[in-house]
Amino acid sequence: MEGGNIVKLHGWKNSPFSFGVALALKIKGIPYEYVEEDLKNKSELLLKYNPVHKKIPVLVHNGTPISESLVILEYIDETWKDNGPQLLPKDPYSRAQVRFWTSFLQQQLSVAMRQLLITEGEAQEKAIKEAIDTLKIAEEGKLEFSPTTPITNENQLGVLDIVICSVLGAYRAVEEVLGVKLIDPERNPLVLSWMEALLELPVMKETRPTHEKTVAFIRSIRENCLKRS
Amino acid sequence: MEGGNIVKLHGWKNSPFSFGVALALKIKGIPYEYVEEDLKNKSELLLKYNPVHKKIPVLVHNGTPISESLVILEYIDETWKDNGPQLLPKDPYSRAQVRFWTSFLQQQLSVAMRQLLITEGEAQEKAIKEAIDTLKIAEEGKLEFSPTTPITNENQLGVLDIVICSVLGAYRAVEEVLGVKLIDPERNPLVLSWMEALLELPVMKETRPTHEKTVAFIRSIRENCLKRS
Repeated sequence: MEGGNIVKLHGWKNSPFSFGVALALKIKGIPYEYVEEDLKNKSELLLKYNPVHKKIPVLVHNGTPISESLVILEYIDETWKDNGPQLLPKDPYSRAQVRFWTSFLQQQLSVAMRQLLITEGEAQEKAIKEAIDTLKIAEEGKLEFSPTTPITNENQLGVLDIVICSVLGAYRAVEEVLGVKLIDPERNPLVLSWMEALLELPVMKETRPTHEKTVAFIRSIRENCLKRS
Repeated sequence: MEGGNIVKLHGWKNSPFSFGVALALKIKGIPYEYVEEDLKNKSELLLKYNPVHKKIPVLVHNGTPISESLVILEYIDETWKDNGPQLLPKDPYSRAQVRFWTSFLQQQLSVAMRQLLITEGEAQEKAIKEAIDTLKIAEEGKLEFSPTTPITNENQLGVLDIVICSVLGAYRAVEEVLGVKLIDPERNPLVLSWMEALLELPVMKETRPTHEKTVAFIRSIRENCLKRS
């Protein structure tokens, strides 16, 4: 698969899932062209590449599109086996654990994170409680494969780190805009130290939108959604 | 991993996802002990094995539990590489396609299938429309990796066949109880011929509940759910 690789990523600058794919490509050292999509006016190409969901991110490898972020992450790991670190562990049981937790975080936490941003009152309280409950489950010794050594460089990163950063990376901006402490040092010491170490990495700072941009984005989606409702 | 393997499957006789895991084990020729769970009174072991979701199916391999049916299917394929057919193709792109479609079917179709069984009136009509729309997407040339040669034996089966049978295997019983034609020969010739070939295989007849039992089960859940609502 090496040689003559043309890789494009159709994404959107505020999407945590585009971010996750971009991060995986950077960790693996795969050069790619980024194509920013206008989600209000999606490109013909995006609709052609992902006719089923019509959603970003889409990875296009030598003209062939792959959709759905977890599917893309596994594709990247399997296609560029020898580039950079393996994003999934080798042993089948550890792989199963990573897949279990990534789909848990992606399904449960990302839904709650979205809801708490676009609602208020009772609905928002419910979403906040759901996010906090989910983080409690993650904390309670159940993320048993979480890093035992401090993360100090990007070569230690895997799919689970990518997904937790996609889903939870904006926690400080959420705290600033909503005044809600999602990750509490008392409740979530493990998740907190893990997130802090991840967000310190140069590759994260280079790939994630800045704190200020995230705050501005959250403010703007809140305004738009609450105006409409 | 060979030698001294003790494999147990905690499942429930009417669960399409338990069925999928049982089918994968049979196709791979892996002997296992089946443990039927009472979902109204789940065993201590099940709660210990799957504390996050508290759900079947759980595969227990030499004492180590693995949960979530798609995760289990990949675990089985990766652990018993040399037993029977590979359940996922080798090539990363084909693997990505299979993962894309299995999660599509599992997320969209299985939710609609459940809803149409436990509702009536408008809610049921909506669920039926959703199931039919999902099947249309599957049909419209998008299941491009679907079998090109007729399926005549279990060694041709893979994860996608397992998942479509889990999610859609009861279509004839649904037709009988609800009078709704989910898979229509005009609308879904590909899906129909695929399902017909799959359901004819001896391994399916041996693993799936009979048509009569499925009809009785659907009648009983409808009675229970509609009584409660």
